[in-house]
Amino acid sequence: MSETAAGGTGQDHEKYSTVGSYVHEGEEYDRDTTYIEDRIVADPAHAELSPGAQAWPVEPGRYRLVPARACPWANRTLIVRRLLGLEDALSLGLAGPTHDSRSWQFDLDPDGRDPVLGTQRLQENYFTWFPDYPRGITVPAVVDVPTGQVVTNDFPQMTEDFATQWGPYQREGAPDLWPAELLDEMRPVMRRIYTEVNNGVYRCGFAGSQEAYDAAYDRLWAGLDWLEERLATRRYLMGEHITEADVRLFTTLVRFDPVYVSHFKASRNKLVEMPNLWGYARDLFQTPGFGDTVDFQQIKEHYFVVHRDINPSGIVPLGPDLSTWTTPHGRESLGGSPFAPGATAPGPVRPEERVPAAHTPLAG
Amino acid sequence: MSETAAGGTGQDHEKYSTVGSYVHEGEEYDRDTTYIEDRIVADPAHAELSPGAQAWPVEPGRYRLVPARACPWANRTLIVRRLLGLEDALSLGLAGPTHDSRSWQFDLDPDGRDPVLGTQRLQENYFTWFPDYPRGITVPAVVDVPTGQVVTNDFPQMTEDFATQWGPYQREGAPDLWPAELLDEMRPVMRRIYTEVNNGVYRCGFAGSQEAYDAAYDRLWAGLDWLEERLATRRYLMGEHITEADVRLFTTLVRFDPVYVSHFKASRNKLVEMPNLWGYARDLFQTPGFGDTVDFQQIKEHYFVVHRDINPSGIVPLGPDLSTWTTPHGRESLGGSPFAPGATAPGPVRPEERVPAAHTPLAG
Repeated sequence: MSETAAGGTGQDHEKYSTVGSYVHEGEEYDRDTTYIEDRIVADPAHAELSPGAQAWPVEPGRYRLVPARACPWANRTLIVRRLLGLEDALSLGLAGPTHDSRSWQFDLDPDGRDPVLGTQRLQENYFTWFPDYPRGITVPAVVDVPTGQVVTNDFPQMTEDFATQWGPYQREGAPDLWPAELLDEMRPVMRRIYTEVNNGVYRCGFAGSQEAYDAAYDRLWAGLDWLEERLATRRYLMGEHITEADVRLFTTLVRFDPVYVSHFKASRNKLVEMPNLWGYARDLFQTPGFGDTVDFQQIKEHYFVVHRDINPSGIVPLGPDLSTWTTPHGRESLGGSPFAPGATAPGPVRPEERVPAAHTPLAG
Repeated sequence: MSETAAGGTGQDHEKYSTVGSYVHEGEEYDRDTTYIEDRIVADPAHAELSPGAQAWPVEPGRYRLVPARACPWANRTLIVRRLLGLEDALSLGLAGPTHDSRSWQFDLDPDGRDPVLGTQRLQENYFTWFPDYPRGITVPAVVDVPTGQVVTNDFPQMTEDFATQWGPYQREGAPDLWPAELLDEMRPVMRRIYTEVNNGVYRCGFAGSQEAYDAAYDRLWAGLDWLEERLATRRYLMGEHITEADVRLFTTLVRFDPVYVSHFKASRNKLVEMPNLWGYARDLFQTPGFGDTVDFQQIKEHYFVVHRDINPSGIVPLGPDLSTWTTPHGRESLGGSPFAPGATAPGPVRPEERVPAAHTPLAG
């Protein structure tokens, strides 16, 4: 599942109430990938749906996106919403970085409640959908504001639908993140990034035995070496311009040195030691819509405070030095540009959605 | 204290039997620096001694040095013994990397007993000296072979005495690690390295609160920045040739990326990101007597297995990539040479004292 408040595999519902049991002794880490698969679509009558799922109509102002800046899966939705300019159509409620065993919480809001949904815990919005909801409470979620119920937490479908279903409400100059001519190549690339890298870091960190860790480490680094090579000759994953595949890789890369290299023992190299990946990550970071969604302090607090079974003290590291994220990346020499002809960069972040200056090197 | 099997500060003897209690909630880490201060000297009748301490005579073949390759304090003795060529005069018994709550153990030996001392645990040799010995059992120790009792575990005095008291038994070409004309400058440098760096990494790792950690981190990096600057214009800490000060810094630097940067959250930068310190560390590593005493696998196993309160799973990271330790360091351009005119490098490591090929990049 995306980023869960329940810990564990989620496949054993008894584990739901256990705080911080992310590691299961002797076991490989096994992510629960069962989601609420309702979709929000342009044409509900003709939507392709999973069995049992419903279609909801695209409707500006009706839904609220609930990510947490800390979470890599949720970070994807923040980036795509910015790139496509969906701020007016889809409002934003941010969960804080350090959920408890029950739920992500709206503890960043002045009175601890989301100002639109009125809830303290995202769990309440899950229970409005299904009172006995037995799985982990995950971000990102999209909530139907009139009823207060969660519509979907299926994050890969979510960003695809933002791109393909919300066309009329996207900004002028919004990029095409799913170019039709690239999809046959792009889907297997994204699949491999998901299984080997996005989820691969968790497989290292939540391994329940030395053997499971060793296997996870080898698999992760095979994936990263493949990407390092792929990016030697391509400015972006699919060539000359940014696509959804870049969004998906970026949110793992930006967490690599602050978290995964140490907390998850993904320790062969830091990102800064991988020249192509490091240049690529900075190129994206410095592109409007990417780095301006990243809150390094919330990212570190989330992992180091929540996963007490691998960091019992809850102490949050002060490192690494993040000032190098804004240094020249030199990737222009590969050609290409972030946005294809006809597309443009998104404008400045709205004041109410800005990452605090102390949490980002972009403020410097 | 040097590297203790007891954990904790050692100042509260009740904590002696507690496994892995290296972190004390809310407290700063406070190293116990009370040692057995007997000395082995050339002239026992005129030795300068701490109150209550005894002087023992230098005598080749009489004593056994007991370090563990894992331990940075003990690693100093391995290097100095090699540099000075004391192998024939002072035999070597190696404790394994993963002691239990009671003691370092001779579990690397085929039958789990040191072949000369006949003991399984170094604790037995401490108890022969003092049956109610109340402190942590530390390495390095020097044991009197005829009686089986520990003579000293006072590691800073130990390497100084190897250099100054054992002259007649040192090899031809042994370097002067304590040059008289440099001592006035060298002692404060070594003191600062000890308090800010050697012990500074432990202060980060065993901090009992976020506040204690934050303060420890700032202090450590102030120390490392001072050294980075000092080594910009000096090939070695005291100038043109290796001294004891370099031995003392080296054993912390060599553990920095494999352990301290992650396990102790000393995370601002990796050593490989500090150009002068990284060149300097490789220069030493590639000098006979330094790198050939380093067992990276034992180092990692020690910290990640023993300190269960900061790594509950006991899983040992496979990273970092260590192959770069043998790359060209470029420090020759600063002038100087490891050994001053008249001194020479030690010869090859004796076969029985070699680090296993799988545990060192020098074997490659």
